Amino acid sequence: MIDPRFFKEPKPITLAQICELTKIPIPSDKDPNRTFKGVASLSEAGAMDVSHFHNAKYLEELKNTKTGICFVTSEYVDQVPSSTIALISNHPYRCFGQVASILYPNIQVFNNISENAFISAKANIGKDCVISPFAVIEENVVIGNNCYIGSHTVIKAGSVLGERCYIESHVTISHALIGNQVYIKPGARIGQPGFGFHMDSLGHFDIPQLGLVIIGNNVHIGANTTIDRGSVANTKIGNGVRIDNLVQIAHNVEIGDNSVLVAQVGIAGSTKLGNFVIAAGQVGIAGHLNIGDGVKIAAQSGLMRDVEKGETIAGSPAIPVRDWHKQTIVLQKLIKGKKHA
Amino acid sequence: MIDPRFFKEPKPITLAQICELTKIPIPSDKDPNRTFKGVASLSEAGAMDVSHFHNAKYLEELKNTKTGICFVTSEYVDQVPSSTIALISNHPYRCFGQVASILYPNIQVFNNISENAFISAKANIGKDCVISPFAVIEENVVIGNNCYIGSHTVIKAGSVLGERCYIESHVTISHALIGNQVYIKPGARIGQPGFGFHMDSLGHFDIPQLGLVIIGNNVHIGANTTIDRGSVANTKIGNGVRIDNLVQIAHNVEIGDNSVLVAQVGIAGSTKLGNFVIAAGQVGIAGHLNIGDGVKIAAQSGLMRDVEKGETIAGSPAIPVRDWHKQTIVLQKLIKGKKHA
Amino acid sequence: MIDPRFFKEPKPITLAQICELTKIPIPSDKDPNRTFKGVASLSEAGAMDVSHFHNAKYLEELKNTKTGICFVTSEYVDQVPSSTIALISNHPYRCFGQVASILYPNIQVFNNISENAFISAKANIGKDCVISPFAVIEENVVIGNNCYIGSHTVIKAGSVLGERCYIESHVTISHALIGNQVYIKPGARIGQPGFGFHMDSLGHFDIPQLGLVIIGNNVHIGANTTIDRGSVANTKIGNGVRIDNLVQIAHNVEIGDNSVLVAQVGIAGSTKLGNFVIAAGQVGIAGHLNIGDGVKIAAQSGLMRDVEKGETIAGSPAIPVRDWHKQTIVLQKLIKGKKHA
Repeated sequence: MIDPRFFKEPKPITLAQICELTKIPIPSDKDPNRTFKGVASLSEAGAMDVSHFHNAKYLEELKNTKTGICFVTSEYVDQVPSSTIALISNHPYRCFGQVASILYPNIQVFNNISENAFISAKANIGKDCVISPFAVIEENVVIGNNCYIGSHTVIKAGSVLGERCYIESHVTISHALIGNQVYIKPGARIGQPGFGFHMDSLGHFDIPQLGLVIIGNNVHIGANTTIDRGSVANTKIGNGVRIDNLVQIAHNVEIGDNSVLVAQVGIAGSTKLGNFVIAAGQVGIAGHLNIGDGVKIAAQSGLMRDVEKGETIAGSPAIPVRDWHKQTIVLQKLIKGKKHA
Repeated sequence: MIDPRFFKEPKPITLAQICELTKIPIPSDKDPNRTFKGVASLSEAGAMDVSHFHNAKYLEELKNTKTGICFVTSEYVDQVPSSTIALISNHPYRCFGQVASILYPNIQVFNNISENAFISAKANIGKDCVISPFAVIEENVVIGNNCYIGSHTVIKAGSVLGERCYIESHVTISHALIGNQVYIKPGARIGQPGFGFHMDSLGHFDIPQLGLVIIGNNVHIGANTTIDRGSVANTKIGNGVRIDNLVQIAHNVEIGDNSVLVAQVGIAGSTKLGNFVIAAGQVGIAGHLNIGDGVKIAAQSGLMRDVEKGETIAGSPAIPVRDWHKQTIVLQKLIKGKKHA
Repeated sequence: MIDPRFFKEPKPITLAQICELTKIPIPSDKDPNRTFKGVASLSEAGAMDVSHFHNAKYLEELKNTKTGICFVTSEYVDQVPSSTIALISNHPYRCFGQVASILYPNIQVFNNISENAFISAKANIGKDCVISPFAVIEENVVIGNNCYIGSHTVIKAGSVLGERCYIESHVTISHALIGNQVYIKPGARIGQPGFGFHMDSLGHFDIPQLGLVIIGNNVHIGANTTIDRGSVANTKIGNGVRIDNLVQIAHNVEIGDNSVLVAQVGIAGSTKLGNFVIAAGQVGIAGHLNIGDGVKIAAQSGLMRDVEKGETIAGSPAIPVRDWHKQTIVLQKLIKGKKHA
């Protein structure tokens, strides 16, 4: 159950409103004015709740659910109990998200500049922004309209944020040009100098890091994630990218539109990812590589070569996922009957 | 040697007091009133120090130690030099810790609310708390008695802390209900929204994250570790859990009592760990899995399936540790005599 | 192109000055007074820029460059277009860095103690330091001359910094003795207690962590990296060490001079690395190991044994890199012609 101390209790909506929102026909045998007022998982939902089914692991929960509405694909609609209204969609999770977003809208940003923030007289803050206590906004920073800047966040000289950005607490932003509607979670570090030095027998010689971080629109960046600025070129994050927590992105990396980097991924310098690339948790990608559009990378893989668009790869060193499955099976066979030395 | 600039010089204690504390009989040939006033490693300890032996790698150090007292298992007692008092225990490291805790007690929490903190008038702070400079305590936060809140720590609206919690600097706490005696190290991020969105060809649709983080009693959370709040259900950390630095815990994960997560472990969404599970460094665990009580997971393993209670597993993909050892040996044999292509 | 909003436009320098700086003879057919005023990558550079070639992957860019000067090894000098001045060096990247450092010198530290910082009356701050807003400097802290302390950085009681240290925003320093010219990036955590407890069936018993972190001269520490203080001994980082982002260094670890730890490396307790060790990204090293001077460790490797000096190792568990290459090839052969089960 959603805790009303943290999330404001929603206003009820009707079946008709839900169907209009998700573009699903109202089932002819159901009352379009029946109301719903919450979202819940299948096992916790009651008659006033909206839920969804999108992972076959939870089939038992589906069969026994008491939810009022369940979004479900046609394949599983027969498993929905008769007490539940089944709404059929190819994308049940998207529909669920649409309803949840209406019931629990994002916190409204309003005009509130804390007296405890430290804001340069030469910074340019847009309309209807929140600047929280102990934030630091340095000279020549530009912040667009309707932005939220959390407590203790530091935006260093010259950085630019677009409109409707939501920057949580304890974020550091430096040498960065950031688009609209970018959401940065607590403790992310954007724009510090990259790991750039020349190694030889004389010891390490540090190379000045003279590039920026350029981030597109509608990007999410996870908690305690680090994105270094470019060395001479820039580090670039495309539109619609989703980056999870504790991810490392080195200098000059470029991430294409709508790509997804799951937690603890690390990408070395100057590597380029195409659009809609998905890197699962703890993947490591070496430097100076090209990873094509739509490439899918299994968790913990280690990439040492370029990857053609559309491939799915796994393992360390990474190989086509089909070969990786074969390898796993061959290895299992090899040890059959062997005693542990 | 313990640096007295950082750790207050302890008052000496006697052999009798040490034996009483650790429930070990006083050796009949030793003076119960002999005093000791420090702890040290075997190689650095002197006649006034207490040390311990619990790792066979350090046998040479044991044989040559000058320590006054050494806690040791019966197996190794013969290796202790005659100038050292050997105190025999099945758990020498625990005994050592008990003595060290008496000699170097934790910093006393006392009543001190910084004028430089930002505390909502609607927050509820217990007795004898410390709130450090630039901490932010938002409305409806509840903090129990005898808590320490470090500099710059942010506790967002509605979160609850029990008694005797010690929260270091730069921590972010949001949407969280936290028990007693919880210790959170610097830079940990608790309760930010999870990595939840629906992916399809229309682009990513973000799902509101409407759950909480619920943390039991006597839990430690490492520096820069990230724990996301639940999506609809809650993320739960049981009693007595120990979490190291840079660990990632995704939304809806549940960790059973007394489990241990070593540095850089990552656990994907909705996975459940039983009690006394141990995951060594850099382990990755996929989403929606069940890991039984007492499971031990070797470093860098990647889990893609449920694991029965009591198993020890290793590798990526993880297999029983016995099979993993065989695999390692088989692979070594296969390359014998092969030239590098 | 370097963005003049973030990096001050440099004063031009002559070919003669560049050659003097890098100790390369002025080519006899070139005008020593020709001026240059920027640095750029091969593909973006123009006639007034200085560039370099040090990675064979970028040979096409070299052949087509329009850069004014290119540092290059003798091996590739024939590939430099005739419109470009080729300056031959065994270390082209070092030469490039030397020029870039002259054109874009580091920000000058000057005397500026923010009124918004919280500084104990018992702290001892050197000459010509910057203390930024909301920094916290506790009692008995000693800071050398010409140090920069970023916003929100916390330096806890008794810690010592040498001269010319540059500590970015949101850093936590505790129980630490730090040398000269140390650069710490945002969000690094230095000196929190290590992950030390005794496990037995009675539950976990926490061991007081009574050591320090001791850091040499000319060290870089990455963003959101964590370095725990020693338990009884100290955690030690040698001179000239380079540590990238999100690295974990456990209690009592010792890192020798000039070693390099790439992003997301994790080193378990009490392990000792020699001098000039290189650990690539996501490497994991178990506890209580000795890694010799000059050892090179491939990305994602897992070390479970001591390594002799000068070895290059790879894999998890790590083996000599030559064996690891053979293993990869043998595995590829084993699956040839096999169908996916």
